[in-house]
Amino acid sequence: MADLSRLSLNTATTKAWTLAEAVDGAARAGLPAVGLWRDRVAEAGLENAARIVADAGLRVSSLCRGGFMTAADEAGKAAALDDNKAAIVEAATLGTRELVMVVGGLGAASAPGGPALPDGDRDLVAARQRVADRVADLAPFAAEHDVRIVLEPLHPIFAADRAVLSTMKQCLDLAEQFPAETVGVVVDTYHVWWDPDLREQIARAGAQGRIASYQVCDWLLPLATDALLSRGFMGDGYIDFPTITSWIAGTGYTGDVEVEIFNQQIWDAPGDETIATMAQRYDTLVRPYL
Amino acid sequence: MADLSRLSLNTATTKAWTLAEAVDGAARAGLPAVGLWRDRVAEAGLENAARIVADAGLRVSSLCRGGFMTAADEAGKAAALDDNKAAIVEAATLGTRELVMVVGGLGAASAPGGPALPDGDRDLVAARQRVADRVADLAPFAAEHDVRIVLEPLHPIFAADRAVLSTMKQCLDLAEQFPAETVGVVVDTYHVWWDPDLREQIARAGAQGRIASYQVCDWLLPLATDALLSRGFMGDGYIDFPTITSWIAGTGYTGDVEVEIFNQQIWDAPGDETIATMAQRYDTLVRPYL
Repeated sequence: MADLSRLSLNTATTKAWTLAEAVDGAARAGLPAVGLWRDRVAEAGLENAARIVADAGLRVSSLCRGGFMTAADEAGKAAALDDNKAAIVEAATLGTRELVMVVGGLGAASAPGGPALPDGDRDLVAARQRVADRVADLAPFAAEHDVRIVLEPLHPIFAADRAVLSTMKQCLDLAEQFPAETVGVVVDTYHVWWDPDLREQIARAGAQGRIASYQVCDWLLPLATDALLSRGFMGDGYIDFPTITSWIAGTGYTGDVEVEIFNQQIWDAPGDETIATMAQRYDTLVRPYL
Repeated sequence: MADLSRLSLNTATTKAWTLAEAVDGAARAGLPAVGLWRDRVAEAGLENAARIVADAGLRVSSLCRGGFMTAADEAGKAAALDDNKAAIVEAATLGTRELVMVVGGLGAASAPGGPALPDGDRDLVAARQRVADRVADLAPFAAEHDVRIVLEPLHPIFAADRAVLSTMKQCLDLAEQFPAETVGVVVDTYHVWWDPDLREQIARAGAQGRIASYQVCDWLLPLATDALLSRGFMGDGYIDFPTITSWIAGTGYTGDVEVEIFNQQIWDAPGDETIATMAQRYDTLVRPYL
């Protein structure tokens, strides 16, 4: 019998399921935790979602996602603060400290296929500064609610449209300006596996107590038409899970390991099969190295 | 009249043209240089290609490409050395010092859609070490021929299948083990625009005299089905050319600026139009900041 005591199902992996179905599926498979997306929480209603998870005896490993805070105009800044404060309250209500942040892309570029970029919107350095400014704005509110702002470095393929933070080092350089209880980082193998600096930055994050979540899924080729959906089960792609997992374990990380896969073929499969496969891969490629 | 005295046409940009046609087209448009791909050179014949360029009074800004040297088996290593020595001889014959290297991906992964990866082939750290070993093998031969091994950091989207060197810093850490005349780096905006460390590493490369080429093209979204083909004219995507170009200029770089675009739509257009557009974009977004 596999030891699944640290394995968490992110609800994005079983996209066809409602929150209640995902919680049932995870519990049925013997998983102790779920990572929740806000859309599924909203659908169920916040209080109800919290009750569903608690009644099943599961913990919430993280809430996805806050972020998208690169807007340069006052209305955009205010909207980002409002939305992220709401997300902080949701995380607290759901009983997780970890609010994962996809920080946003290059201003108007956040809407691919949208209108041409205004001049200033290609200024990556300025967009990153706006992220730092918004994190500073939000940190006191997060601390009051005992929720951690978890910065997620996204693969550089998403630097234009989703996240101007691309590396662990960048996220840690920003996080370090705040207490470890208030700003952390998530290590998602899909986004960071290629980083030549990964071992060192995982060690740094661990030493500071900032690893809020370890998320695992594989890098598949060829890329899906929507690159976001090129994530796969561990072992189906190019990522060296034993090595990266041993780096995580080397920091003394004792938290959950979340599986978050966006992949149309997996979404089209029955949820119970998906959980069975991810548990089997976890048991082979991840758990032995934890 | 635009000042095109540092603009070079990479033959990959006008893919439908033979080498002779590309050289004619570049000369007709008033460009002083071409960057050559080895397939076009082989097609024309090496000596003939050298003569075509010389007769047109152009210089060769770089030869693309050597590399693909991550094989772990003896036969694969020997084949990589043979092929790269041939490329070094070709560069010398063509009168360029700069041989651009796409170093190769994760072993068997170099053939996407190929067979499943053998176990050791996901070891990115080991693959990088093999690149370093092959560069060391080749450096004396390159130096004898007065040719520079030019390491190209490729966007991390290509880390699995094309290049295990993803950042300027990685390339420079390796290059620094050799004289600047023997191992250099190329700055290709498409590959490095997202790098939070870019300004610092460009300065480092420049201070060491290792910038062998500055290549410009834009990052387009949505990605093409073949991600390789998502490159576009400067100004059509998300890259901040004035800023990056000013960093290059700040190092005192006086070399050519090569335009290398892989894009089916551009390939389908008449070559003269393509050159006119790239010259216009260069004159607006790049040259004023050089």
